Amino acid sequence: MQSAYEQMMEHVRETGALGHVAQRLGWDQETVMPRGSASQRGDEMAAMETVLHARRGDARLGEWLSEAEADAAVQADPVARANLRHIRRDFDRANKVPQRLAAEIARVTSVSQGVWAEARAKDDFAAFAPTLKEVLALKREEGAALADGGDVYDALLQDYEPGATAEQLTQMFGALRPRLKALIDAVRGAEAPPKVSGTFDEGAQMRLARHVAKTFGYDMSRGRVDKAVHPFSSGSGNDVRITTRTAADDPFNCLYSTIHEVGHASYEQAISQDYLFTPLGQGVSMGVHESQSRIYENQIGRSRAMTGWLFGQMREAFGGFGIDDAETFYRTVNRVHDGYIRTEADELQYNLHVLLRYDLERALIERELEVDTLEEGWNARFEADFGFAVERPSNGVLQDVHWSVGLFGYFPTYSLGNVYAGCLHEALRRDVPDLDARLAVGEVEAATDWLRDNLQRHGGLRPPRETIMHATGTEPDEGPLMRYLETKFSDLYGLSI
Amino acid sequence: MQSAYEQMMEHVRETGALGHVAQRLGWDQETVMPRGSASQRGDEMAAMETVLHARRGDARLGEWLSEAEADAAVQADPVARANLRHIRRDFDRANKVPQRLAAEIARVTSVSQGVWAEARAKDDFAAFAPTLKEVLALKREEGAALADGGDVYDALLQDYEPGATAEQLTQMFGALRPRLKALIDAVRGAEAPPKVSGTFDEGAQMRLARHVAKTFGYDMSRGRVDKAVHPFSSGSGNDVRITTRTAADDPFNCLYSTIHEVGHASYEQAISQDYLFTPLGQGVSMGVHESQSRIYENQIGRSRAMTGWLFGQMREAFGGFGIDDAETFYRTVNRVHDGYIRTEADELQYNLHVLLRYDLERALIERELEVDTLEEGWNARFEADFGFAVERPSNGVLQDVHWSVGLFGYFPTYSLGNVYAGCLHEALRRDVPDLDARLAVGEVEAATDWLRDNLQRHGGLRPPRETIMHATGTEPDEGPLMRYLETKFSDLYGLSI
Repeated sequence: MQSAYEQMMEHVRETGALGHVAQRLGWDQETVMPRGSASQRGDEMAAMETVLHARRGDARLGEWLSEAEADAAVQADPVARANLRHIRRDFDRANKVPQRLAAEIARVTSVSQGVWAEARAKDDFAAFAPTLKEVLALKREEGAALADGGDVYDALLQDYEPGATAEQLTQMFGALRPRLKALIDAVRGAEAPPKVSGTFDEGAQMRLARHVAKTFGYDMSRGRVDKAVHPFSSGSGNDVRITTRTAADDPFNCLYSTIHEVGHASYEQAISQDYLFTPLGQGVSMGVHESQSRIYENQIGRSRAMTGWLFGQMREAFGGFGIDDAETFYRTVNRVHDGYIRTEADELQYNLHVLLRYDLERALIERELEVDTLEEGWNARFEADFGFAVERPSNGVLQDVHWSVGLFGYFPTYSLGNVYAGCLHEALRRDVPDLDARLAVGEVEAATDWLRDNLQRHGGLRPPRETIMHATGTEPDEGPLMRYLETKFSDLYGLSI
Repeated sequence: MQSAYEQMMEHVRETGALGHVAQRLGWDQETVMPRGSASQRGDEMAAMETVLHARRGDARLGEWLSEAEADAAVQADPVARANLRHIRRDFDRANKVPQRLAAEIARVTSVSQGVWAEARAKDDFAAFAPTLKEVLALKREEGAALADGGDVYDALLQDYEPGATAEQLTQMFGALRPRLKALIDAVRGAEAPPKVSGTFDEGAQMRLARHVAKTFGYDMSRGRVDKAVHPFSSGSGNDVRITTRTAADDPFNCLYSTIHEVGHASYEQAISQDYLFTPLGQGVSMGVHESQSRIYENQIGRSRAMTGWLFGQMREAFGGFGIDDAETFYRTVNRVHDGYIRTEADELQYNLHVLLRYDLERALIERELEVDTLEEGWNARFEADFGFAVERPSNGVLQDVHWSVGLFGYFPTYSLGNVYAGCLHEALRRDVPDLDARLAVGEVEAATDWLRDNLQRHGGLRPPRETIMHATGTEPDEGPLMRYLETKFSDLYGLSI
């Protein structure tokens, strides 16, 4: 007879397979679905969500969990213990939120994204404010239900970064912000590298993207690269697909979006096959996921050594393109440039964008800030951090979709990912002293093998922070990221820090 | 409060949406899925099937059905009555087959296709025979459970063609066979039209396929055309996708596969939106579905008028391609050629292939034939019908996948579809006297509008035979098909019949 743990895992694996089906539908929708199928697809996704919701709240899970938690054989097995931890957290979460509230959140967020998109198109925050108030009120209520008297924002954070606390993040980000600002100020005073200009064939961009994806270790026999409006990675295990985008006047958009998504996808592809469709069979948190995409994109992909190789590939793909030497190419892809938009920010300024959102959303959840003064708050903070004013809400408070669909607690994982990438990069350089020599000839596996063996293959076995510590051997903090940025950009911009 | 009927329909619609998701997975698998994802996809499909199976056997359906059938308001509504008819049939079917037997059929047929494929590749019927015996024994048992003392083959037939009986089919096919053989014999004595030769760019073939698909009324805003190993149509309502294939030396394969699948897909696209995700929201039977693909492909697509237009499109796509006038083009695409393979047969010989399978599979189910003498029986019948001998089983009894996966009762729907296409074609010509003048200039909507209004939009509202009668005004029989074939091929081959 099957033990409670085995029965539970069978149920969980089947739910995992169905969840993966829903992800494939999402990929289909963004890449190949005919435009006239959208409304019907909504019904199909809703039916899948209904099935998944019922399975995740299945009362038998509670019984199986209690029995399995009391089973000494299960507790002696680290993989089983890790599964229990994930399933218990998800089950408790589902049961802490009243059915009425969950349904109301689903109802409101199914339309709020459309309201946000329209408000953004019209540059009219007031048109979005009433909807955002509704979403915020529901998320405050959900957070309170989850927090059980504890910190409401911390409770929401667990959906994206289990184990993280606002206290930890605030301390980390508090140390980052002044050092980032100082570095950015110094860079602004120095001579800027050249921009790239010209027209770059989009077919050639896609061919280069696929070639670079393979070079960075993406397994194309278990994945594929397509075009979509927004780059994303989707799926786990043996079917992990990425999308990228092309712009005729900016080949780096396609190139670095691809490398970024390859970081996410390689993580999913590398996880032990034993964990397929279980909670351990996917990236352990948003922050750890982002650490992979960022270290691929920035610490590796924008390194002097790697850009030397990439420069050669660009020449092969496009012939002469106005940048004539590898060092200028390196400076160009690391160009620091002012801008309003987070997703277009450079490596240096990106975290300032995130920190702004983190402070604002925490204040919103903690009722220290209300929607009526949010735009004002955004604009004041932006000018303080970036030194110039937001002139319209589509460049400011309306630029991101996250809050409109209730994603409070998501933003900080972007910067946490950068901090983790910094830690991993320092440990990688320690363990692979000749890394640059290898990257310079396109041997990225020196880095990707290290990441796979020390982090990626373990999936959700350890909690996020422990996942990083297991790979690096030390407690993560912002130090390595800042040392890396200060060294790199001082060198690039001839600063003396 | 919702009535039992309304509750049932909500459940049925959600099941329909999930079934459509499974179809999208199937499309993905055949078109875009990475090759290394196959095993994982198997688990995903199995999870979907488990969900669908549980929903279709849900005990509440039985209660809702009984209540709804006793509800006068429901019985007064023709749409509700039609839904009841479908749901009752499916529910009773699910409950007549013991769980043990259903599971055993699923288990055996999940591996038997692989055994068949290997046996076919090795040209070794004996390697397949034990597996086929297993499948046959299970299907005989299933048929007996479904038949409740009635005809076992008829019971299996209901899965593909509700309301059809072997008695009816045998009579119809009995009348077809001698007339087909006589016509084929006469054609064999006459001079054959030329074949096409040369190399045809496969990209140009796909562009032509998409252009022709649109001309034949396929709505590309709710569909798409991709390449796959086997052409198929998949989906219902607002997301109906087709695939086609290309061969560099045979542009007609791509062209007519596309038109055939457009027939299937247009049917699904045309069904009233009110029926979406209900039993009425899809083609009513295999036979009626095939009538649409065949009338698009043959009666319309291979008519002298339509090929005149298609000849011009071929010239635009490929320049000169060795056929210099529309009449020769017409004769070439209607060329009668000997062959072993059903799927490659011409319009005239195709039904002989099907009739052979129908008689053999009925004898198998009725225990008048056993697997041990099946190959022998096939070869004898083939030689009698076609006048030459099968020299290896991959060209004979091993050529089709159907029996390996338990599809007994499916084959006759191909010829029934041709018979129905003949009836619809006669009625279409009666109602649209200037059809040829319109087809000759590419105005296919004269035909497709008629099919949409008289047949396609009604989906599953009426049983299959009634669906045809509603469109034509008369009882369907083989007369119109034979008159059409005799007239067309006598003219083409200069026969005097």
